[in-house]
Amino acid sequence: MIINAQFDAGNIECLQTSDPSDVQLRIRNDVGDEHKQWFYFQVSGARGVASRFNIVNAGEVSYPDGFVNYQAVASYDRQQWFRVPTEFDGKTLSINHTPETDSVYYAYFAPYSFERHQQLIGAVLEDDRVSSETLCTTPDGYPLTLLTIGEPAADKKNLWVIGRQHPGETMAEWWMEGFLERLLDDNDSLSRAILDHCVFYVVPNMNPDGSVRGHLRCNAKGKNLNRAWQSPTIELTPEVYYVREAMEQKGIDFCLDVHGDEALPYNFIAGAEGIPRWNDHMALQLDTYKSVLSTVCPDFQTEHGYPVSAPGTANMTLSTTFIAEHFNCLAMTLEMPFKDTTERPMPETGWSPERSMRLGAANLDAMWQTLPLL
Amino acid sequence: MIINAQFDAGNIECLQTSDPSDVQLRIRNDVGDEHKQWFYFQVSGARGVASRFNIVNAGEVSYPDGFVNYQAVASYDRQQWFRVPTEFDGKTLSINHTPETDSVYYAYFAPYSFERHQQLIGAVLEDDRVSSETLCTTPDGYPLTLLTIGEPAADKKNLWVIGRQHPGETMAEWWMEGFLERLLDDNDSLSRAILDHCVFYVVPNMNPDGSVRGHLRCNAKGKNLNRAWQSPTIELTPEVYYVREAMEQKGIDFCLDVHGDEALPYNFIAGAEGIPRWNDHMALQLDTYKSVLSTVCPDFQTEHGYPVSAPGTANMTLSTTFIAEHFNCLAMTLEMPFKDTTERPMPETGWSPERSMRLGAANLDAMWQTLPLL
Amino acid sequence: MIINAQFDAGNIECLQTSDPSDVQLRIRNDVGDEHKQWFYFQVSGARGVASRFNIVNAGEVSYPDGFVNYQAVASYDRQQWFRVPTEFDGKTLSINHTPETDSVYYAYFAPYSFERHQQLIGAVLEDDRVSSETLCTTPDGYPLTLLTIGEPAADKKNLWVIGRQHPGETMAEWWMEGFLERLLDDNDSLSRAILDHCVFYVVPNMNPDGSVRGHLRCNAKGKNLNRAWQSPTIELTPEVYYVREAMEQKGIDFCLDVHGDEALPYNFIAGAEGIPRWNDHMALQLDTYKSVLSTVCPDFQTEHGYPVSAPGTANMTLSTTFIAEHFNCLAMTLEMPFKDTTERPMPETGWSPERSMRLGAANLDAMWQTLPLL
Amino acid sequence: MIINAQFDAGNIECLQTSDPSDVQLRIRNDVGDEHKQWFYFQVSGARGVASRFNIVNAGEVSYPDGFVNYQAVASYDRQQWFRVPTEFDGKTLSINHTPETDSVYYAYFAPYSFERHQQLIGAVLEDDRVSSETLCTTPDGYPLTLLTIGEPAADKKNLWVIGRQHPGETMAEWWMEGFLERLLDDNDSLSRAILDHCVFYVVPNMNPDGSVRGHLRCNAKGKNLNRAWQSPTIELTPEVYYVREAMEQKGIDFCLDVHGDEALPYNFIAGAEGIPRWNDHMALQLDTYKSVLSTVCPDFQTEHGYPVSAPGTANMTLSTTFIAEHFNCLAMTLEMPFKDTTERPMPETGWSPERSMRLGAANLDAMWQTLPLL
Repeated sequence: MIINAQFDAGNIECLQTSDPSDVQLRIRNDVGDEHKQWFYFQVSGARGVASRFNIVNAGEVSYPDGFVNYQAVASYDRQQWFRVPTEFDGKTLSINHTPETDSVYYAYFAPYSFERHQQLIGAVLEDDRVSSETLCTTPDGYPLTLLTIGEPAADKKNLWVIGRQHPGETMAEWWMEGFLERLLDDNDSLSRAILDHCVFYVVPNMNPDGSVRGHLRCNAKGKNLNRAWQSPTIELTPEVYYVREAMEQKGIDFCLDVHGDEALPYNFIAGAEGIPRWNDHMALQLDTYKSVLSTVCPDFQTEHGYPVSAPGTANMTLSTTFIAEHFNCLAMTLEMPFKDTTERPMPETGWSPERSMRLGAANLDAMWQTLPLL
Repeated sequence: MIINAQFDAGNIECLQTSDPSDVQLRIRNDVGDEHKQWFYFQVSGARGVASRFNIVNAGEVSYPDGFVNYQAVASYDRQQWFRVPTEFDGKTLSINHTPETDSVYYAYFAPYSFERHQQLIGAVLEDDRVSSETLCTTPDGYPLTLLTIGEPAADKKNLWVIGRQHPGETMAEWWMEGFLERLLDDNDSLSRAILDHCVFYVVPNMNPDGSVRGHLRCNAKGKNLNRAWQSPTIELTPEVYYVREAMEQKGIDFCLDVHGDEALPYNFIAGAEGIPRWNDHMALQLDTYKSVLSTVCPDFQTEHGYPVSAPGTANMTLSTTFIAEHFNCLAMTLEMPFKDTTERPMPETGWSPERSMRLGAANLDAMWQTLPLL
Repeated sequence: MIINAQFDAGNIECLQTSDPSDVQLRIRNDVGDEHKQWFYFQVSGARGVASRFNIVNAGEVSYPDGFVNYQAVASYDRQQWFRVPTEFDGKTLSINHTPETDSVYYAYFAPYSFERHQQLIGAVLEDDRVSSETLCTTPDGYPLTLLTIGEPAADKKNLWVIGRQHPGETMAEWWMEGFLERLLDDNDSLSRAILDHCVFYVVPNMNPDGSVRGHLRCNAKGKNLNRAWQSPTIELTPEVYYVREAMEQKGIDFCLDVHGDEALPYNFIAGAEGIPRWNDHMALQLDTYKSVLSTVCPDFQTEHGYPVSAPGTANMTLSTTFIAEHFNCLAMTLEMPFKDTTERPMPETGWSPERSMRLGAANLDAMWQTLPLL
Repeated sequence: MIINAQFDAGNIECLQTSDPSDVQLRIRNDVGDEHKQWFYFQVSGARGVASRFNIVNAGEVSYPDGFVNYQAVASYDRQQWFRVPTEFDGKTLSINHTPETDSVYYAYFAPYSFERHQQLIGAVLEDDRVSSETLCTTPDGYPLTLLTIGEPAADKKNLWVIGRQHPGETMAEWWMEGFLERLLDDNDSLSRAILDHCVFYVVPNMNPDGSVRGHLRCNAKGKNLNRAWQSPTIELTPEVYYVREAMEQKGIDFCLDVHGDEALPYNFIAGAEGIPRWNDHMALQLDTYKSVLSTVCPDFQTEHGYPVSAPGTANMTLSTTFIAEHFNCLAMTLEMPFKDTTERPMPETGWSPERSMRLGAANLDAMWQTLPLL
């Protein structure tokens, strides 16, 4: 048996493979050592072998609760991902599986490669209404791409949608695919209507470096981008620095920041409630958005989520709080589960790329119905 | 130049083809002679020839207004349909086109063949949640198919969706495809949610005989099915007879009857307002449904439509009025244009199969949000 | 249980369906009563029911030997066809099957609908190198389509390929699909090379009327087209009349006529050996063609086939003999099995559309290598 | 304008981009500095800008003749690649192009990513007849994958097919895709027949490290694998070492090594003519193979190619010469052009992935017909 993680987003260290019933593995730290939890590796040569892959440092990851009631995903062709029996005793995460072919992949969630990212950019640019710009080249050398969809105009609202500040939250980029596919579907009258009134600024992947490196949360400088919005720097957090600058330049009336949550088995939205300028209109905008979304997409709910910050106690380094306060607009963080939704579980796939895409598409309904309040 | 209409849904009579600038054609009557307007024919041997196809009895069709501001559809491969320049002087409908290949098709609207109907039935039956039954064999020998989607149960609502009582209104069956595709999309949480509470009874094509014959409105006995709901007979209108019987047997809490309108350039819904038992709750159901649909699908609107019948003056032979009165439930007629939508026109395709499919999918939102009122 | 054959190529009469273990059916005669063997029908309402479909006049069909060691084909979606257990006692053909869905189709061989035929024509016409003409309108009103592929020129050979004179031999049109697909594949250098030297005249379906009617061998006038080549008439065999006329007009250096054989479990070619002008060069052409084809496509063989006619004893009413004699060129009849190939059987599908398509593609190799001899 | 090459197989250094009419670029050396010629980069922000990309060290590459009469390839979506106007003055290679979108890619030949490689492996493993093993993990950490197709048996021939020893010759892996697709096509009777008599050992990519690094010819240790067959080492050329070892272990009766040639505008095969044990039977095998291949695939020819080594003068470090001598079997090197074929040019694409795939498929005919001589 050979374990390999030398590919886009691969992350594992192999301690021993001689006993298939006790393969010992470790998750590598993100650069900077602050975080780890994402894993993704290939197993060769174990066809028909009942195997147990033990990730022995699973108790030391960023969110150990994320491994409680969690099932890992596997794939033979990197296209179809399915859940496999997984146990967690607080220390070791054990994936139990008998591969059907000589080569199989296991991951924390269905990966979204930079190759696919580039194909997504290439595909949407075939639409005349889309343009792109490279905001900067990242420390690892990747282009940070901003898509502009629609013709900017004084009487249009500027809607920003950004994702994958935390690179291990790949569901965020699957979400983007579903969102962009619907937005550019000319036969969808809601998409055509919203583009009469809005320009969309979309950053499908805020953190290419961390994505390719197989990080959970940090960029190539070991920084958590979603703690850098108040004081981003060109050197350490250029991704945030240049996106913030583009927001200033192009204007912003709305921002949705798309994430995954390791622990909570729900889709939910966190608002900017604890910021200084929080007010009733902001609350109405937020409630409207959440309400519409839960109606059109029952996979989304409004009951469970993060505790709401008390007035004035918000952590202002997040994109959502910073943007809401600084730009005085509706800003929200959308969280999807790594696990599954409690209310409408689908055990074979758990939360999945396809469901993320549907949720992405459904957000257009929420934007459309919240638009009069922006 | 050879004109041919000998295929599923073909309808034309050829008077003369010797002069390409004045090809003379006639639309055949439906059996029973009451109606005509649907046309569909193939032209061979006119590659590169600037042609003018004059339908000389266009002024005598069922709805001459349908040809005002109307553009015919054309296709080379029967897959992609596009609009071609068309004029109407009150008597003759003239299609002006220079075919790019040796074989081209022209039609009143993108056809939906019985072959495709059977593939649709075959495709949806692959889903375990779907069963079908043949309610009767039509006079021309086709199966009249009822799909049941979901497991019937006492605490579930029974939602009926029927289409294409008028066979020339092919957009109704394109609508069905979009509706069924979404309803059976397991990754769409709204679809999964609504199936927890409802069973769907779907008749994608109420009038196979008229469809294959290339009729506008009648079945093989020359009867307009949507005038037969009060007193259907096994002999003349078996399609309605057996569907009505199945409604009695299985129960019905909701019915949507899907149509196309020759003249009005709008998507709209006609309710059962003029029936004896009309009441405020029915009005609320109707308004809710229309309101949700216009919100989620801006191609649908609520301003334009048929005049509302005064209390007690409804024509009780229609499916909608009969069902609302007899079964005391929400019943509606959805109308789509043959032309285009006035508010959001797409000149290249006009109203189209793809847009019909999106509207079909969007109706699930309206059903879901109206469900608490049923 | 409802049995239905009211669709393109449908053929069955239903005697009784009350006992699923003894459903009694009859094959309808071709018009003119000379032939019958093709069957194709839909069964509704038998999900999960162990059924036995007895075709009680199977002993009286054109080629009862065709039912010996024969397995019928079935499909749920009309796209994937598979073999089902079938018995023949010399009188009754019994298909034993438990359908998995409410609707299932059974046929003598995977059908090829006129709808698909028209899509094939539409698809190939998108290639600039293809033109089509309607040679005549058949008695039932269908266009008889001749495709011309490549630019005619004095120094090019004229290769004719015709199929489905016998409409029940649907493998002939599947063959055409594979043949045309390869011929028009611009990246296939053999196809590009052969088009430098040849023009192809292709009649994918010689007998549309019989095809739609569900005949085995005859046209709408009850005539076997492949017995009409010596004296075709506009009235009774216009299909042959107009194709022969086109051959005279355009020239012909080669003709392949594609068929299926009910009884023999082999792919083979019958030549024109018994014609008056048979000579060594013709024999060399024939042997070369067969030899190349058996090399590039092992599903084709040269050992088994029809007995070779003695010199001067050929039946001159066939396309192959008539063309070889009259036009003094290589003419052949290609036969594919309804059953399977004996040497390389694939029990799940038997001989199939896909294998017919591969054989069609492989014939281009044989044409290319025989070309120097033409 | 931003130039980027930070992705799988990217290779460029950017000297200046301020003047679009004189963008100055350099090709990076392979590790070890012996070779360079492959390039692949993305240009962002040049939509509608008439640009001239000057590769200023093009005169110093491994095969400057490769840039004579050469056209670079470009793509917007990394799926469709087309040729763009390119000039070479002996020193600078100038690509002239006005991009239609904000993001465009240029390359030496259509790239074949490791992501696609892994999907290819995953896809073929879904066939029960295929197994894979990881021969070693490369210095850069990638699995070196050997595919075994068919069940090994004493009476079967062992046919080896290896490709992309030189990683910049990406056409070799496109070839593999076409070859494997046909070999595993169950409906292709030649493929089924050859698998009755042969087992295939296929290494689709001998040099993953060089492929991902964007090398022309070397691996991660700076070694040209196709000069290492006589004395491969675990440290410097493990790819060759372990493949040679597997050949010893599994047996070998035939080897085809698939390459691209920078300079010659032809598809051709180089044999092992100059080896000590060269003999008439080897010459017959070689001639048969080449002759069949040129017949079934006119894109392949036998007139042009490398000069044949005189007896006893062969370079024995190549795979072909080493294998032929050491294993006493037919071994050949297949070369495809980076440019186009002289005899049947297709200016829009030049030699391309699709044509490479067709050639790969056609080699099965040559193997089949040469098999009796092995």
